[in-house]
Amino acid sequence: MTNSVFITFEGIDGSGKSTQARRLAEHLRRRGLDPLHTREPGGSPGAEEIRALLLTGDPARWSAETEILLFTAARRDHLEKTINPALMAGRPVISDRFADSTRVYQGATRGDLRAIVDDLHARMIGREPDLTFIIDMDPAEALSRGLARQSGEDRFEEMGLPFQETLRHGFLALAHDHPERCVLIDGNRAESQIATEIAARAEAALNL
Amino acid sequence: MTNSVFITFEGIDGSGKSTQARRLAEHLRRRGLDPLHTREPGGSPGAEEIRALLLTGDPARWSAETEILLFTAARRDHLEKTINPALMAGRPVISDRFADSTRVYQGATRGDLRAIVDDLHARMIGREPDLTFIIDMDPAEALSRGLARQSGEDRFEEMGLPFQETLRHGFLALAHDHPERCVLIDGNRAESQIATEIAARAEAALNL
Ligand SMILES: Nc1ncnc2c1ncn2[C@@H]1O[C@H](COP(=O)(O)OP(=O)(O)OP(=O)(O)O)[C@@H](O)[C@H]1O
Ligand SMILES: Nc1ncnc2c1ncn2[C@@H]1O[C@H](COP(=O)(O)OP(=O)(O)OP(=O)(O)O)[C@@H](O)[C@H]1O
Ligand SMILES: [Mg+2]
Ligand SMILES: [Mg+2]
Repeated sequence: MTNSVFITFEGIDGSGKSTQARRLAEHLRRRGLDPLHTREPGGSPGAEEIRALLLTGDPARWSAETEILLFTAARRDHLEKTINPALMAGRPVISDRFADSTRVYQGATRGDLRAIVDDLHARMIGREPDLTFIIDMDPAEALSRGLARQSGEDRFEEMGLPFQETLRHGFLALAHDHPERCVLIDGNRAESQIATEIAARAEAALNL
Repeated sequence: MTNSVFITFEGIDGSGKSTQARRLAEHLRRRGLDPLHTREPGGSPGAEEIRALLLTGDPARWSAETEILLFTAARRDHLEKTINPALMAGRPVISDRFADSTRVYQGATRGDLRAIVDDLHARMIGREPDLTFIIDMDPAEALSRGLARQSGEDRFEEMGLPFQETLRHGFLALAHDHPERCVLIDGNRAESQIATEIAARAEAALNL
């Protein structure tokens, strides 16, 4: 019996992806499994270096096209060096964001490049998650959580509520288009209540 | 009248690409033009940073697939930031290596990835040079030049003569497949003799 199931968390900024990814990893550990908990962008030494290249210097210095190539290079490295080896070893993999984030953020900013994003994914990544939790919630509510968090990152305000609304609709469309792997999770609830639902779904996927 | 002609130099290691690219730039300057002289990998600040990422650390740390994505990202940046602006300003552009190098080196090392290289080029680069000088010569002769040069780079010996023979055949096949832009240059001659032939061909392309 293998536990090599690839699980991802997606959703708008502040929807609780990192919180729930961590809780699921802890839950599976308590159940005696050895999950790999990773995240994007980054997740392998090479991918982290590419990420640093993307995040340093003038934010406008890379075109959207070059950025897509760099993100795909980082994801390929993450897949080869971190995700695939763990799956081959029979471990569940939990990733905080994956290719769906690129699809939705790209769609919201440069929708004309969506065909390129999909083509690069098909050619260079190929792999889709077995199970994707899309945490859906009201962007205004997510925004107030972000403010409470006081992380020093002002992305919410910088991008604005209308942008988060666009992202939300992008994630909803994705869940609709890929019902075979996507599970929509209502994020407007208490942390532990959400965690319980996610744990049950993950256990079913893992045949626990 | 515009002088926006995109000229590239290709060929095996040590065949005289950098020497002839420099001589052609000088020649066009003497003819009153303002050529942009650039090179790959690199050629723009962003591309140089990606290049550094490719060249630092353990040489085996990137897979061939990730490497292709990084090279394509660097080339896209080079094209956007350096080559296209010069062409748009009506200047001739001379590049020491371009996409043909990726095609030939990739074909020699991981021929199974050639379809991906071509597809990425079509989608993300698109542009081909107007004129490509492929300097053809005996690899053993090129090797002895390299040794005379004493640059401290031992790539010739590391890769070996059979590898250079494979590259040579790759460049010859490319010249055969793209007669509309490729000119085969006999590199087994004196520098100035080669430079005279190249200058005449470039002047014709520039309608000088
Ligand atoms: N169900 C919840 N109810 C209330 N607050 C929550 C809930 N889940 C998470 N939070 C809090 O909301 C904030 C954002 O959560 P988290 O960092 O998990 O979101 P995220 O989706 O990973 O955000 P980002 O997109 O910025 O990475 C944190 O301060 C977290 O403690
Ligand atoms: N026609 C020639 N006859 C003899 N020596 C030459 C000739 N052209 C160039 N050289 C010498 O050969 C060496 C390699 O030339 P060059 O650096 O121009 O080659 P290259 O194709 O750019 O090499 P690389 O692939 O390593 O960049 C240099 O030392 C150069 O001075
Ligand atoms: Mg997070
Ligand atoms: Mg050179």
